[in-house]
Amino acid sequence: MTTHWKTLRWVGGVGGSLFLIDQTLLPTEFREIECRDVETLVEAIRTLRVRGAPAIGVAAAYGVILGVQPVMKKSEAAFIERLRQTVEQLAASRPTAVNLFWALKRMETKAESLRGRQTEEIAAALLEEAQKIHEEDRQMCRAIGKHGAALLQDGQGVLTHCNAGGLATSDYGTALAVIYAAAESDKTLHVFADETRPLLQGARLTAWELLQRGIDCTLICDSMAAQVMREGKVQAVVTGADRIAANGDAANKIGTYGVAVLAKAHGIPFYVAAPSSTFDLSISDGSKIPIEQRRAEEITHGFGRQTAPPDVPVYNPAFDVTPAELIAAIICERGVIRPVDREMIAETLQV
Amino acid sequence: MTTHWKTLRWVGGVGGSLFLIDQTLLPTEFREIECRDVETLVEAIRTLRVRGAPAIGVAAAYGVILGVQPVMKKSEAAFIERLRQTVEQLAASRPTAVNLFWALKRMETKAESLRGRQTEEIAAALLEEAQKIHEEDRQMCRAIGKHGAALLQDGQGVLTHCNAGGLATSDYGTALAVIYAAAESDKTLHVFADETRPLLQGARLTAWELLQRGIDCTLICDSMAAQVMREGKVQAVVTGADRIAANGDAANKIGTYGVAVLAKAHGIPFYVAAPSSTFDLSISDGSKIPIEQRRAEEITHGFGRQTAPPDVPVYNPAFDVTPAELIAAIICERGVIRPVDREMIAETLQV
Repeated sequence: MTTHWKTLRWVGGVGGSLFLIDQTLLPTEFREIECRDVETLVEAIRTLRVRGAPAIGVAAAYGVILGVQPVMKKSEAAFIERLRQTVEQLAASRPTAVNLFWALKRMETKAESLRGRQTEEIAAALLEEAQKIHEEDRQMCRAIGKHGAALLQDGQGVLTHCNAGGLATSDYGTALAVIYAAAESDKTLHVFADETRPLLQGARLTAWELLQRGIDCTLICDSMAAQVMREGKVQAVVTGADRIAANGDAANKIGTYGVAVLAKAHGIPFYVAAPSSTFDLSISDGSKIPIEQRRAEEITHGFGRQTAPPDVPVYNPAFDVTPAELIAAIICERGVIRPVDREMIAETLQV
Repeated sequence: MTTHWKTLRWVGGVGGSLFLIDQTLLPTEFREIECRDVETLVEAIRTLRVRGAPAIGVAAAYGVILGVQPVMKKSEAAFIERLRQTVEQLAASRPTAVNLFWALKRMETKAESLRGRQTEEIAAALLEEAQKIHEEDRQMCRAIGKHGAALLQDGQGVLTHCNAGGLATSDYGTALAVIYAAAESDKTLHVFADETRPLLQGARLTAWELLQRGIDCTLICDSMAAQVMREGKVQAVVTGADRIAANGDAANKIGTYGVAVLAKAHGIPFYVAAPSSTFDLSISDGSKIPIEQRRAEEITHGFGRQTAPPDVPVYNPAFDVTPAELIAAIICERGVIRPVDREMIAETLQV
């Protein structure tokens, strides 16, 4: 169940570049873009050419290298100043997913620990750190898959929202990792993929990925999730997360909260699959998670065609927050957090 | 709060034609199509150029005239045979909305009552009957508006799904009639319009209509309804219906059931506004309502662009059924049915 494509890959050593699949072109076109500078990467993150909390984290780590490359031979002061600017640029690209800030912090800490060394040496160590973050992300996906697969039974229907798959991570995914791992252990599942308006990550990315990996799936509009639940076709819901507060409230793609309410009303367990880097323990509950508001045009001109009256007021939050009490379990690389509460989260994360 | 446009209008006497706003072109283009024969009308109903249960009923009544026009000077037998064929053609155009069958039945009953008369005389009486159905529909909308407006308070946020407005009826609407009537009695409301995938009737038609009539509205994706409810922005939900069973279970545009579940979870009353012709008392509960399945392309190529992988399996039911227990009241032209149960429905409909 491997694929030939990589969501992101670094080519070359220090002085190299980051290749990303341009996810805005899928599923009709498969094309990689090459980021040789941090501006190209920031634009790619903003416009969702690369998206998914874990993938954004890995991309941002490499982005730090892209940022410092032009000043590699300059003074340490110039290098560190440029590094700080790069981190600021990347941090401003998207506000909700915490993995971005986590990866940037880790890169900064690494640089700090090397103060006094040659700038080339620091840069080489930073690239190594980014590659380590990348490799850890791969392993995280596999671990989440393994832990989560045990929650699914042979023959079940599983509903997912947005894309928390290989395309949202370095490989394999979070929510979809659970499905892939279950399939690898010979459980036959049927996946219902919400198309996920406004940007259709479910239709464009999840359906594409599932078909590529040979998983049975059915594409539905977001408004059909309640109906497939009512028809008894869904026995579990699994989604990803972009930021999880200390109490377990989880921000994820807009629409996730509604799916969680519907799952509860139909007696279906709702699972969140996310790495420990998604937790933001500095935030006590979900009400403090910043929610990105995006352009009206994503709704009114979503597919290159005007589908609403000009100047109609639009509300377009990119995320919503699912309260912990609606989440049956959070599947992270360290294990399954259940029940989802402050104590169990602290215990699992060993803080 | 009147508009210059008419969802449908008959021009000429017997031998005339039916003009319909081509609703598939809204909101970017306003264009009427002229139906001179029943085939053109059937195509218009199938492709949703005209849609909305009450509007389909009125259109079908006129469609009977279109069907018999070519045989007006033939024998009574030929006339009646052609009338039967026309009714069959129209009945096969869409399966869920019962107003279609109700209007056809009424036209057939009228024709039966005139057996033995000159065919021209029968045709003239049929046109009169269609115009009566049309006028009754206009009055029904106003009565629904009046009854329903009392349920809404000044300053409330009201969410609606799909389009149950002037465009779904001869004029004024059902769910939107309630909002228009409340606004006319000086209540300031803010409407949240679900865009209503796959065919975006909310974005294309409801938002267009609301702006035309000067009602404050915000367009959201279907997946955002839960979030605006959670933020306390919605105090009531009003939708239309395509068929209501004897126990109050109501079929309406796909996504309505999910909205009803979400409304209940947030303690928000969910109202259905529909004329008495929407009730199908021959059906004991919602499980017996036939649900139209539509083409996969509405989801995979909804905006003139491919947005899903080729050959991805798709589930595309056009309607769902909201169980009576989720409906706070049904607003019909005869009054407000509350609680929604078999007895109260029978009493209101006087059967």
